[in-house]
Amino acid sequence: GIDGNRLIARLRELGEIGRDADGRLIRVALNDAEKQGRGLFVSWLKQAGLDVVIDRIGNIFGIWRTGDPDAAPIMLGSHIDTVVNAGIYDGCYGVLAGLEVIDALKCHAFESSRPIIVGAFTNEEGVRYVPDMMGSLVFAGGLSVDAALAAVGHDGTVLGRELARIGYAGETEPGFVTPHVYVELHIEQGPVLERDGIQIGAVENLQGISWQRITIDGTANHAGTTPMAMRCDAGQAAARVITFVKDHVERAGTSGVATVGTIAFHPNVINVIPSRATFTVDLRDPDEAKLKAAEAALADYLGRLAAEMGVRVATERLARFEPVVFDARVCGLIEQAAREHQLSVRRMTSGAGHDAQMIARICPAAMIFVPSRDGISHNPREHTEPDQLVAGANVLLDVVARLARE
Amino acid sequence: GIDGNRLIARLRELGEIGRDADGRLIRVALNDAEKQGRGLFVSWLKQAGLDVVIDRIGNIFGIWRTGDPDAAPIMLGSHIDTVVNAGIYDGCYGVLAGLEVIDALKCHAFESSRPIIVGAFTNEEGVRYVPDMMGSLVFAGGLSVDAALAAVGHDGTVLGRELARIGYAGETEPGFVTPHVYVELHIEQGPVLERDGIQIGAVENLQGISWQRITIDGTANHAGTTPMAMRCDAGQAAARVITFVKDHVERAGTSGVATVGTIAFHPNVINVIPSRATFTVDLRDPDEAKLKAAEAALADYLGRLAAEMGVRVATERLARFEPVVFDARVCGLIEQAAREHQLSVRRMTSGAGHDAQMIARICPAAMIFVPSRDGISHNPREHTEPDQLVAGANVLLDVVARLARE
Ligand SMILES: NC(=O)NCCC(=O)O
Ligand SMILES: NC(=O)NCCC(=O)O
Repeated sequence: GIDGNRLIARLRELGEIGRDADGRLIRVALNDAEKQGRGLFVSWLKQAGLDVVIDRIGNIFGIWRTGDPDAAPIMLGSHIDTVVNAGIYDGCYGVLAGLEVIDALKCHAFESSRPIIVGAFTNEEGVRYVPDMMGSLVFAGGLSVDAALAAVGHDGTVLGRELARIGYAGETEPGFVTPHVYVELHIEQGPVLERDGIQIGAVENLQGISWQRITIDGTANHAGTTPMAMRCDAGQAAARVITFVKDHVERAGTSGVATVGTIAFHPNVINVIPSRATFTVDLRDPDEAKLKAAEAALADYLGRLAAEMGVRVATERLARFEPVVFDARVCGLIEQAAREHQLSVRRMTSGAGHDAQMIARICPAAMIFVPSRDGISHNPREHTEPDQLVAGANVLLDVVARLARE
Repeated sequence: GIDGNRLIARLRELGEIGRDADGRLIRVALNDAEKQGRGLFVSWLKQAGLDVVIDRIGNIFGIWRTGDPDAAPIMLGSHIDTVVNAGIYDGCYGVLAGLEVIDALKCHAFESSRPIIVGAFTNEEGVRYVPDMMGSLVFAGGLSVDAALAAVGHDGTVLGRELARIGYAGETEPGFVTPHVYVELHIEQGPVLERDGIQIGAVENLQGISWQRITIDGTANHAGTTPMAMRCDAGQAAARVITFVKDHVERAGTSGVATVGTIAFHPNVINVIPSRATFTVDLRDPDEAKLKAAEAALADYLGRLAAEMGVRVATERLARFEPVVFDARVCGLIEQAAREHQLSVRRMTSGAGHDAQMIARICPAAMIFVPSRDGISHNPREHTEPDQLVAGANVLLDVVARLARE
């Protein structure tokens, strides 16, 4: 099996990189802390005797050159960037477990038919630059390197310049290799496995993701002197949209979800009616038709609101990914490996976006989930028990060993 | 009459101080631009031969020492701080017209029975430090100087330190004199005079103002993996409150108003359910009982929301002023002066808070309003025609001349 103690210790060590004065983990893509995290990961890759390759979008790969050098490699991986005030497992678990799997096979002189690679993809979270899963999207050819490097962050920075600044603008072309198969291990980040007492999720599909930024323009005016009937209040209009998206997905009764995670008013002054409200809408559904319907309902509502309230509404698409169906055979291997470990296993859907959904464009791919305590993620309370983390990594090990014999 | 051309020219000159790179007027209390504006105003006071007194809260007074030196003075005034992205008339009009009135009387060697003072009160807008009308409130003894100096701004600055930094921490005790009467000339900042074709408002009362900051705490979680039914979304709760306050005052059908002018989500990330939403509520009503009822309805709604949605709600009072009734005799003098100038005049209520409401605690006070184009204020489009500005200043001149004979 893999070295469980080292896996847990490394997760904790990496999880300390990027703490602010209040102890909050903020290792967002390409900030100083993420540079430090990348450095630590690269040092571990070298310690394991792997070749390190950095591509032009900053994806980091550790390559075990073994078996037939011309055979398509097995690829494992995830990401090491975080959200703001994050937990320590999201992404890092899949990356560090992938490294442990390679290390275990290498130490036991396992005879793989093909190279094995572990990757850490750039800007998976999409917190600083959109779209999310950017590094794997570029790797899979879904976005040009140049477009990605030109992305402007919410802080006004340019991705390509930040990448150069932290020293991770590599020279290798993304997609330099097409994997034979891609397997990503991740915490569930949701409540399903824990609630149903299941130890391993064999992720067979991943819901579609629609991200928009909505800007509503009204008229700034004095909060004391302007009669209610004469207002054109952008903040009130925004509040109605926020309530609408929630009510809509709840009424639709599908497994779809809707979230308004960011907002800003302008001028944002206590006694001034907001002239502008800007906010984001994150819509998801495993069913593309239902996701399209939710987008259409929102667009329709915005149109009616503009007419009724006299506000102007502009929408900007930040990201749009269709639902993905993973490889059935690899899913089957995951189920089989879990059962051989006497672990309960269930086929399931991923609510979160993952690098696997991008790499699935170029090779068979699937994911392995382990339970998240209280279903909490993107929160410092994110937690999975060490024995569950180790169990998930050993399932990955067995799946890789099986694939490496092909 | 007063020097109308100079009044307009000075309003425009002062209105250029505090423009940012985008041309937005941001002369909020005690920032560098406001320091510059204060300097310009003081230079004009000196040019008019007035004694300049700065008190401990930074109120600036220009005193024409005339008549009986022991008689209580007539006080005119308003403020020169602005909101963010402001117009040029709010506050400055009353201050500069007051100065023109004194200058006109002085040049014509008018024999006043008592001194005449024009004041510019500190931090009237309440944008940077709460409460608003702070300088006049301190002057009237409603807030201790020390408490006011200790106020912490939304930008983390301490008012007293900023006052010292810009060189306006005076030595005179606020309230160093109790005025015989206070008259404040101001733009209406609302739509009433224009809509009804009235040239002058004799302001007989001013509505009560209730400012609160509301903080709602929920639970941050992943926007993709967390089923709608398992969320504790602080942003959704905030949206419901924002809608509620508007619906409530509209349903109540009074002349009350409700505004949510500021908001922030935490962590404010596109794919994270907000763990916290913070926003302000500005409630106003000319009737204290109705204002209390609106506050109670909001408190009740927040309690129900906490129970229903599982969020925690905290409220903080930022400012609370009861409705004020101005002096009937001074109002009558304003009406009389307006009629003598062949100007249409109407008794009315002020929707905005003004320094006059604070000074009314210590002496008879009233206000004169002139129309605001389209009822717009706290907005760069704030506008009043020059002839209306001059007409208002001449009404003030006549009212003062009458009071100065007493
Ligand atoms: N796994 C994960 O949190 N990815 C971020 C993209 C998303 O919002 O789903
Ligand atoms: N006149 C004015 O805009 N005062 C600011 C205080 C208020 O919000 O009414």
